[in-house]
Amino acid sequence: MAAPVTPPRGMRDFLPNEKAIREHALGTIRRIFAAHGFDEIETPVMEDSARLHSGLGGDNEKLGFAVLRRGLSPADVAAAAESGDILSLADLGLRFDLTVPLARFYASHRAELPAVFRSIQIAPVWRAERPQKGRYRQFVQCDIDIIGEAGPLAEIELISATTAALDALGLDGCSVRINDRRILASLLAHWKVAPELAERALITIDKLDKIGVSGVVTELDGLGVDIDGIADTLEVMPGLGWDAAAPAWLDHSAYADLKALRDALPASKLVFDPTLVRGMGYYTGTIFEIAHPELGYSLGGGGRYDGMIGRFLGTEVPACGFSIGFERIVDLLGATGTVDTDAVVLVHEKDADPARLVALKAELVASGLRVRLERRTKNLKALLDRAAAAGYGRYAFVTPETGPPGSLQFRPLGESAHHH
Amino acid sequence: MAAPVTPPRGMRDFLPNEKAIREHALGTIRRIFAAHGFDEIETPVMEDSARLHSGLGGDNEKLGFAVLRRGLSPADVAAAAESGDILSLADLGLRFDLTVPLARFYASHRAELPAVFRSIQIAPVWRAERPQKGRYRQFVQCDIDIIGEAGPLAEIELISATTAALDALGLDGCSVRINDRRILASLLAHWKVAPELAERALITIDKLDKIGVSGVVTELDGLGVDIDGIADTLEVMPGLGWDAAAPAWLDHSAYADLKALRDALPASKLVFDPTLVRGMGYYTGTIFEIAHPELGYSLGGGGRYDGMIGRFLGTEVPACGFSIGFERIVDLLGATGTVDTDAVVLVHEKDADPARLVALKAELVASGLRVRLERRTKNLKALLDRAAAAGYGRYAFVTPETGPPGSLQFRPLGESAHHH
Repeated sequence: MAAPVTPPRGMRDFLPNEKAIREHALGTIRRIFAAHGFDEIETPVMEDSARLHSGLGGDNEKLGFAVLRRGLSPADVAAAAESGDILSLADLGLRFDLTVPLARFYASHRAELPAVFRSIQIAPVWRAERPQKGRYRQFVQCDIDIIGEAGPLAEIELISATTAALDALGLDGCSVRINDRRILASLLAHWKVAPELAERALITIDKLDKIGVSGVVTELDGLGVDIDGIADTLEVMPGLGWDAAAPAWLDHSAYADLKALRDALPASKLVFDPTLVRGMGYYTGTIFEIAHPELGYSLGGGGRYDGMIGRFLGTEVPACGFSIGFERIVDLLGATGTVDTDAVVLVHEKDADPARLVALKAELVASGLRVRLERRTKNLKALLDRAAAAGYGRYAFVTPETGPPGSLQFRPLGESAHHH
Repeated sequence: MAAPVTPPRGMRDFLPNEKAIREHALGTIRRIFAAHGFDEIETPVMEDSARLHSGLGGDNEKLGFAVLRRGLSPADVAAAAESGDILSLADLGLRFDLTVPLARFYASHRAELPAVFRSIQIAPVWRAERPQKGRYRQFVQCDIDIIGEAGPLAEIELISATTAALDALGLDGCSVRINDRRILASLLAHWKVAPELAERALITIDKLDKIGVSGVVTELDGLGVDIDGIADTLEVMPGLGWDAAAPAWLDHSAYADLKALRDALPASKLVFDPTLVRGMGYYTGTIFEIAHPELGYSLGGGGRYDGMIGRFLGTEVPACGFSIGFERIVDLLGATGTVDTDAVVLVHEKDADPARLVALKAELVASGLRVRLERRTKNLKALLDRAAAAGYGRYAFVTPETGPPGSLQFRPLGESAHHH
């Protein structure tokens, strides 16, 4: 057939081994989040186009996959061509994040939820980005959010649950970089950046670790910001940390709040970084990002977005969230290679009686084993290697002489098992 | 805002209680299928349009959600309006079942899979059907398939694993209706139905339980089938069962194969039903459906489809599958109402120190408890009721006098717990 058998561009199939690693990691994250008092919810993968393009998704709105209206006539299509409004052909779209759906969910179900609602969302999102290494068009996000808590308890619980999940996954050495939008505002005020340039100036500052002080100064100059003295400020910012004498320009109230967060978190893995920006315009207070010493990219992030939930509800509701970038996490985990001795393979001849095989299997399953039947092939070693790679720990031959399950001679699967 | 806060038409949000029931049921199904030697895989939710419209999806192909090409120009849209080929605006679509993606997956990854591949797919699919009670536009299917096994072992393992999953879910009383396409063929031959009328005649026979003998006869007559003697055959068919003397027209070889399946399955829950048809044209041998005594609809079904996998691969590959209709299953389960005594609520005052609360919580979580913090509200009973409904089993007050975790006074949550 002409159509390729590969998945669509930028999307992936997961083979049994890969799927097992993913499900194990997702199970760990789910368990830790639940232990920390969060509740899992689910929304449909599609949302109304109008909602996905309401301005809350930032640049991601442009990356959305749009779903064609059903029952369109050629006249409808011609009208869209005429008006140039191509998106009018779509009434739905695939979600590009889990935050816009959460805001819609909360607005819809507020009366059924606790006053402080701690949500878990573990689900795929879609973005039509140019595919590249580690960047996919369908990928899973693991979000926790606390809606209805204005105080620092929200930040503390979110960071605490997220770092606990990373620990449980065995990802040692992660730290959380933290900053506050108010500190960034005080920086821009210190530099006398005009309000209309603020967002673009922040995007530039965010690039400090990539383009350096001179790069940031050049870009800010290009924006029309008066760059007098900016280089001096930038030089010291990344090293400020918790103990340095805070410079005069820094919002001391916000800085004190961040220090209180640090003191409340047992692991003290919080790193103050006044150059941390986070891209989304909806953040209103704290912002944070997971850093790993060996990686040049973040493993997740989040922050406080008090204005956003209210947009759909018509009232102000405080909210704060933390999102783990699951694909990056799972790439770090790699192959676990765990072997389960309770998973066994029964190797049988081609002409074995199916009824007998299945009866044997049923008895073993009932005794708590995971059981796979495998018809003996010429290349027995390849068969056994494959079963070992799939996590099966033992195997036995079923012959016409085999009696009840107790008579099976199980041997270990793996390196030393192939010479018998 | 103008946009409604409800999910798109025919799609659903799941609140914490609903999501917990769903995840619990999915976990049970996943565990049983894995114990039976099946391996879970995953494919992207989208597939190429050409593949989704290759004719293997039957009527479901018409129900697919199509995804608009990215970067369309008004000229592209005008051209589609001109040609009338509106679907040319879409390059991708959301999958409407898990069988077409499985066939594509197998064709892509055959070299990496065992000779007999037993797959699990537990995932949502999308169909733009008219929403009605119990029918949704996004719904989860739980499919197991065995690819590469031509013999009855495939049917036996599939039916065995599926009935084990239903048992583990506590759905007693389910049975599996079974038939074979060869038996239907022998019936049509007996009635001398012309080959070009065969598929439509089968669709009519499938409606026997709904429209009765006279209804079927009338429809067949309308199709142009010679109805002489048909009513007599139809009268006895539903009651044939395993022990009746098989009528002369029936394919005795296929009937013997079905009896062999019945003998191999310990529970003997297999009901022979020569009127069972199953809608999909790709079935080539056995077909089966899960029946529940109290329900007028099936809870799932499947069959052998030896021709289909080969369509994408260019070679013949035997295949057989069984799909559980998860939404119908979960509707039957209803609220489980399980309460977890290891899940505790800490009720605290509004002005409690966040650092102290979180330290207390961390210690309890580390000891194996699931812990939710709740700020005390005026209506304490409502707060506790909600926690009990969410499955939390105990609660304690945290006051300024509270010492280490051991000093917390836990009380049970639930009916009797509110008068203290």
